[in-house]
Amino acid sequence: MIYDLIIIGSGPAGLSAAVYGRRAGLNLLVIEEKPMSGGQVLNTYEVDNYLGLPGINGFDMGVKFKEHADAMGAQYKTASVTAIADRGEVKVVTTADGTEYEAKALILATGATHKTLGADGEAQYVGKGVSYCATCDGAFFKGRDVAVVGGGDVAVEDAIYLARMCRKVYLIHRRDSLRAAGSLQDKLFSSDRVEVLWNRTVSAICGSDLVESVKLRHVTEQTEEVLPVEGVFIAVGMQPNTAAFRDSVPCDDGGYVIAGEDCATQVPGIFAAGDIRTKQVRQIVTAVADGACAVAAAERYLNGTRR
Amino acid sequence: MIYDLIIIGSGPAGLSAAVYGRRAGLNLLVIEEKPMSGGQVLNTYEVDNYLGLPGINGFDMGVKFKEHADAMGAQYKTASVTAIADRGEVKVVTTADGTEYEAKALILATGATHKTLGADGEAQYVGKGVSYCATCDGAFFKGRDVAVVGGGDVAVEDAIYLARMCRKVYLIHRRDSLRAAGSLQDKLFSSDRVEVLWNRTVSAICGSDLVESVKLRHVTEQTEEVLPVEGVFIAVGMQPNTAAFRDSVPCDDGGYVIAGEDCATQVPGIFAAGDIRTKQVRQIVTAVADGACAVAAAERYLNGTRR
Repeated sequence: MIYDLIIIGSGPAGLSAAVYGRRAGLNLLVIEEKPMSGGQVLNTYEVDNYLGLPGINGFDMGVKFKEHADAMGAQYKTASVTAIADRGEVKVVTTADGTEYEAKALILATGATHKTLGADGEAQYVGKGVSYCATCDGAFFKGRDVAVVGGGDVAVEDAIYLARMCRKVYLIHRRDSLRAAGSLQDKLFSSDRVEVLWNRTVSAICGSDLVESVKLRHVTEQTEEVLPVEGVFIAVGMQPNTAAFRDSVPCDDGGYVIAGEDCATQVPGIFAAGDIRTKQVRQIVTAVADGACAVAAAERYLNGTRR
Repeated sequence: MIYDLIIIGSGPAGLSAAVYGRRAGLNLLVIEEKPMSGGQVLNTYEVDNYLGLPGINGFDMGVKFKEHADAMGAQYKTASVTAIADRGEVKVVTTADGTEYEAKALILATGATHKTLGADGEAQYVGKGVSYCATCDGAFFKGRDVAVVGGGDVAVEDAIYLARMCRKVYLIHRRDSLRAAGSLQDKLFSSDRVEVLWNRTVSAICGSDLVESVKLRHVTEQTEEVLPVEGVFIAVGMQPNTAAFRDSVPCDDGGYVIAGEDCATQVPGIFAAGDIRTKQVRQIVTAVADGACAVAAAERYLNGTRR
């Protein structure tokens, strides 16, 4: 059979696309490689910026999102997608066991993964002091001392952001200069709440139930020190989950699928929604909005009116 | 005092901006002219496509949204904004009583209003069979007979959309030809569930508790007929609420503030979020996403890194 639409991935973008697609009467299939839907949300301790669901546990949010799509009659297949192919009016999705699924349109919504430091304790303290998103979690650390790890625009923006609410912000960078834009650096250095710790890497994140400190190693002097902080914001980049698509749709240098607000990729009939696409703001709500926009664009494509 | 940010309007876009702005530690004020926040959502009978809040009453959703912003400590002023002015680093907002408020950045989020037919019964049956958004409400009319009123792209897209789930769709148009794109018309005419009723206007929408029929007047023959339908989708355009801003920020021919996904208008420091800006998909979730994007862009502007 040929589906109207196949959605690959079932985080906030994929599930929102499923809701909009089902409500539009489209015959669709959602393919997810993990046993549970929800994406990055599932591993988030608390989400407090998705309007209407204040202070919700990430796992509960993932379940709520999935239940909403289920109520609309979305159908799922658990499988890892290894390739997609554009055959004009039909798009083919191949999964790891060699099965092929066909649809008139595809929405790619496999998200992105925050790069990790690989430090001892990092994985253990995710959601318990370790965060990969200052915009998402900064407000939980009001009046506390925190560290930001990284040296690019995002790390410096995070440090400036956190300095508005935290008591003290340490920016930990492995080099002796920042890659961030000059005006951002000016703003950073003008804050009396921020201290930059140069030439240090994080060797361990320590605590009991929650984070209490980070262990730093000085890159040139090989000394170690312990910095007491309650939050560690890691801003060393993201990796979009686009390995299976890169031969089929144009991606940027970072591996993100090139697509604007309408989620249209450069291949007619293939759309990209959520963290996977080129965009400025990667938040749960912007991924959910993409689900709506991608379905609207897919409908225009199916109606033959896509420019 | 000079606020970091003034948000004008407190529908989904404005309230989301308030949540993101407060969490970012910005000193902000929300100015709303109506006694209640929530915007168009308040008058919506049921919302079923905002991921995570299935089947919620619009009024309850508005209250939930407002409570979320309140919990973040957003401050409000009830006043009608009559003008805004750009004085470089300071933006000035003037309200009807002549008071001036100052901020470093503004987010315009006053939304848009669906144009009405002005037919008897139209206002009375909003949410009880009368809808201005097929994407939002179409799924509630599965298997029913409905009418769409209008002749442009949106009206024809709505008719195609509804034909996938409704038993019969009447497209009512006051002229003898459609303005919609040719490919859309092809799609429309190929559907055996759609019937176009030319040269008719709607003189009344009738029913008991819910809509049961529409009364049509033939434009040239001056005859009247009664068409039994349970839903009436009115697609005769929208009017953005931008009268107070048109002298200050560039708008398109339809009156929408020109701004892309990052919500940046052509005036540095002034942002536009939600239905008020030029965009393809005007949905609650895309307005809420705009709130997040507008605050992110405002922060970049305040940090001095806006291109």
